[in-house]
Amino acid sequence: MDDKLEQLSPEALKLYKIRHSLAHVMAQAVLQIRPKAKLAFGPPIEHGFYYDFDLGDPITPEDLADIESRMRKIINEKQKFDSFSRPVDEAIKHLATLGENYKVEYAEELKARGETELGFYKNGSFEDMCRGPHVEHTGQLPADSFALDNIAGAYWRGDEKRPQLTRLYALAFPTKEGLKEYQELRRLARERDHRKLGTELDLYIISDKIGPGLVLWLPNGTVLKDELENYAKEIEFRAGYVRVSTPHITKESLYLTSGHLPYYKDSMFPPMKMEGEEPYYLKPMNCPHHHMIYASRPRSYRDLPLRLAEYGTVYRYEDSGALSGLLRVRMLSMNDAHIYCRPDQLRTEFRAVLDMHEMYYKKFRLSDFWMRLSLHDPENTEKYVNDPEAWKYSEDIIRDVLKEMNIRYEEAKGEAAFYGPKVDFQIRNVIGREETASTNQLDFAMPARFELTYIAEDGKEHRPYIIHRAPLGTHERFLAFLIEHFGGAFPTWMAPVQIKIIPVADKFYGYAEKLQQELSQKLLRVEIDQSSETFNKKIRNAVTRKIPNMLIVGGKEEEELAVTWRRYCTKDQRTLKAAEFSALVSSMVRERTMDNFSDEELPTV
Amino acid sequence: MDDKLEQLSPEALKLYKIRHSLAHVMAQAVLQIRPKAKLAFGPPIEHGFYYDFDLGDPITPEDLADIESRMRKIINEKQKFDSFSRPVDEAIKHLATLGENYKVEYAEELKARGETELGFYKNGSFEDMCRGPHVEHTGQLPADSFALDNIAGAYWRGDEKRPQLTRLYALAFPTKEGLKEYQELRRLARERDHRKLGTELDLYIISDKIGPGLVLWLPNGTVLKDELENYAKEIEFRAGYVRVSTPHITKESLYLTSGHLPYYKDSMFPPMKMEGEEPYYLKPMNCPHHHMIYASRPRSYRDLPLRLAEYGTVYRYEDSGALSGLLRVRMLSMNDAHIYCRPDQLRTEFRAVLDMHEMYYKKFRLSDFWMRLSLHDPENTEKYVNDPEAWKYSEDIIRDVLKEMNIRYEEAKGEAAFYGPKVDFQIRNVIGREETASTNQLDFAMPARFELTYIAEDGKEHRPYIIHRAPLGTHERFLAFLIEHFGGAFPTWMAPVQIKIIPVADKFYGYAEKLQQELSQKLLRVEIDQSSETFNKKIRNAVTRKIPNMLIVGGKEEEELAVTWRRYCTKDQRTLKAAEFSALVSSMVRERTMDNFSDEELPTV
Repeated sequence: MDDKLEQLSPEALKLYKIRHSLAHVMAQAVLQIRPKAKLAFGPPIEHGFYYDFDLGDPITPEDLADIESRMRKIINEKQKFDSFSRPVDEAIKHLATLGENYKVEYAEELKARGETELGFYKNGSFEDMCRGPHVEHTGQLPADSFALDNIAGAYWRGDEKRPQLTRLYALAFPTKEGLKEYQELRRLARERDHRKLGTELDLYIISDKIGPGLVLWLPNGTVLKDELENYAKEIEFRAGYVRVSTPHITKESLYLTSGHLPYYKDSMFPPMKMEGEEPYYLKPMNCPHHHMIYASRPRSYRDLPLRLAEYGTVYRYEDSGALSGLLRVRMLSMNDAHIYCRPDQLRTEFRAVLDMHEMYYKKFRLSDFWMRLSLHDPENTEKYVNDPEAWKYSEDIIRDVLKEMNIRYEEAKGEAAFYGPKVDFQIRNVIGREETASTNQLDFAMPARFELTYIAEDGKEHRPYIIHRAPLGTHERFLAFLIEHFGGAFPTWMAPVQIKIIPVADKFYGYAEKLQQELSQKLLRVEIDQSSETFNKKIRNAVTRKIPNMLIVGGKEEEELAVTWRRYCTKDQRTLKAAEFSALVSSMVRERTMDNFSDEELPTV
Repeated sequence: MDDKLEQLSPEALKLYKIRHSLAHVMAQAVLQIRPKAKLAFGPPIEHGFYYDFDLGDPITPEDLADIESRMRKIINEKQKFDSFSRPVDEAIKHLATLGENYKVEYAEELKARGETELGFYKNGSFEDMCRGPHVEHTGQLPADSFALDNIAGAYWRGDEKRPQLTRLYALAFPTKEGLKEYQELRRLARERDHRKLGTELDLYIISDKIGPGLVLWLPNGTVLKDELENYAKEIEFRAGYVRVSTPHITKESLYLTSGHLPYYKDSMFPPMKMEGEEPYYLKPMNCPHHHMIYASRPRSYRDLPLRLAEYGTVYRYEDSGALSGLLRVRMLSMNDAHIYCRPDQLRTEFRAVLDMHEMYYKKFRLSDFWMRLSLHDPENTEKYVNDPEAWKYSEDIIRDVLKEMNIRYEEAKGEAAFYGPKVDFQIRNVIGREETASTNQLDFAMPARFELTYIAEDGKEHRPYIIHRAPLGTHERFLAFLIEHFGGAFPTWMAPVQIKIIPVADKFYGYAEKLQQELSQKLLRVEIDQSSETFNKKIRNAVTRKIPNMLIVGGKEEEELAVTWRRYCTKDQRTLKAAEFSALVSSMVRERTMDNFSDEELPTV
């Protein structure tokens, strides 16, 4: 048993043994149907295990049930796991005789590393070179909580110049419930994958002709992005922020002042160089532009705090291999702001920023979030701005605020930015995706670099503090997260199509159009299904598109100036006056209610 | 009299003579107080005339009244203008004797060009080398409709290596009313200059460190820009547009397809070049990005018209010398859209686009606008796409639509884009600034270049037409225009600060804050004047800032839960219940009424 295993808890070690033993049993079953198969490696992994084979005849998905039932038979037989060892040369010879050339190669390697004896495990007719540990006998393996999962290709030793093997993945959990729960979460995650929903719901495209990581938001996705930002704008208006709007490019000298050049250069797009002018860069963040606005006139202590917000689009030259859907992109739309404040305002402002995070998460039904406070390391004077007093002042303030808030947090010494402490928010959604949603920094370096000052009550120039904050992070990543969280079923205020009108027969189109006009007049996004599909198919289509409100209209509705309103999420259906519906849905949108989701629909993990 | 003068109308020629003769009279008066002054050139110009002098002692603004009164005396004396000529060598000798070295230089030049005789004019004691024409005698000059205007420096022959002269500018009109009218319009134009108001009202800055032509919108300016765009979004929602959002950059290949490279290259920022990837460019327009969205999936005739709108920011590499305030910039925020439609939809769509222009102009009280229809030249087959049928079809449709609309328009043959006809809108505001507000193009070339198609009812692929439109042009230019049009006094819905609360004494701050909270709750932009100024100064400050609504609150207001509401533009003042005011102003904002301007306040030129 190696050192890593010794660190495991008894439960984790038990699970390791189960998965490892099941890998042997799976290989044993595969050999029963493919006797010429050669074995490579078969380790336990997160959620289960795999084994790599060099097969003569390929295994097909149809073989999986057979292999599973053979494994259950082996489990039933309670075969004992016997461990023994062979001198290394004897082991190599033995494996060579069996034709296990992959094992031979590995054994030669172990010999070269100085091993003199090699461990083997045997159960029933199956023997494998292995250090263990294993369960005592196959009867200890859970016959109903493993499942063969997936067949994939894998190169021997991960090297694409070596032979390609067949990797058989399996899931394995201590209990049947554990397996089902994981399978369900994974099914949900796949069904809700934002790239899948992004295509199905026409949210965005990424075009080869324009470039990787550069998102083109289609009309439906633009609605989501705009609604999110409109919401943020309203929240920030109420919180005393003012908005600015700055260019996406700047002369090089701005980034020489900020220090982004040369330190951040690798994450920036290359410069645009022209005759007789300084090179220009695409901005990778909004801060230096905001600092120029702060610096554009004298500021007094009475002007602070100054909270400058911008829906800023920034460009970062991420490696094209790392780009993925909306999660990692090269153009990032940020709900960004910088708060310039006096030392005596720091506590209130920082608290307000964290409160705003909590408010957003509650709004979006994200109850699983926590914070991480990154502190400086006083021993490491090279890495951090040398201002012990400012460090103590700001770290104490932040720690106090975190304690007050009663939200889970952890501290990490030596993880601060060089210019100040920061607080990260981690969030997890219903399908278990965890993200760093937002990083909040307290900055005492940039005010000095940009010579930002304010005239205090003492009539002298002082440096302000800056809080950097973007509670929704980038809209690309936050929307990817929300698309998966909501499974594409957005609350009415966000939904690209808020209302779909489905007339029960052609003769009710006139009434449907009248309704559409009235609702559109109130700036609601309404469509009539005018396709040639059957009524039932139209209903199903609206459900597939996850449209939050369906209005079914026929003779009774027209006669009574009513609508039959069916809600996607709660499946409620009721008939009410059209005017009443219109007032109700307008108020849902105005108040941005999430009330089309029942609590059951949005469980929190 | 030279050829250019022969083309003038009798009135214009008369004015030319008046201005030219006044220039002589001004020089004559200057010589009376600066006898050693040497004369350079003194031509009539638009709005008046100037004369360049090489003065021993400089002329100061205090001298101007003296010069003007001497000019009036000369006018009173009805001095006759005598014209005569001298042989060229005699003329040169004569001028040299007088020490008029600038005139000598010019006479030498005329001699070199082959002139044998040079013309002179003389009135009273004043003689000048001059070809005329002039009025008969100074008594024909209008003593009350000229005005010395400005003293400036000017290099001899405009060459900065030659001596610097003093240029004395004067205004001159046929009538006193003409002069006053011009002076008033110019005063208004200077007072309303968007660069002046931009600074006074804290609307925007341009920073050396970021770059010329790159506007940073301050909080007040961002409100204007956002309100304008919110308004456009609402208008477009009601007109059936859908919104998209695209990156500011793209791979080079997109512009090779569109043809912007190489044809538009000079107006584009240089490429960003990186290892192992195509170069990237900042987009100079949104069209190709929108075409990629159109092309991203099959389109049916039922999907058309598709109206894709974007608040797109584009970058154009304008020569830095040509940049001016918001009028000519390098980052342009466009209220842009592209309408993809079938041939049978072209007429309705084009008409709707022009109607939208008219609606905007009426909204903003711009009654002085007209259109220009640019047509192709059928003779010039090289310049234009060779599709006579498409040209005839689209030009006929547009001409029909223009006739229907009953708006002034002119036609210009051979001025179309190579891919289709276009309609420009010219607008003029209250201070006489004229702008090309918008260009609307009908495009049949790009659909072919981008292989855009739709499946028509016949089941076959057809090319759509594209209408390019941006009725508000760029927000930078349109806002410059509106700032000057409104003189910085925006209607309530646009105003950066919509309401300023001024308590008559400190003890009413509590009530003021309560009001502010209630109004802010409704998303109104409200400030309390908390400065230490006197009450009267606070009122004056609010007026200087052109804040549309002032609320004056004291004991009576607090007691009755009322406010005294004073409006900037109409100067109306009345006391009403706070709740009534709140409802009223909310509705003004919601309806975007322009009703804080009386018709007198916004005359149309």
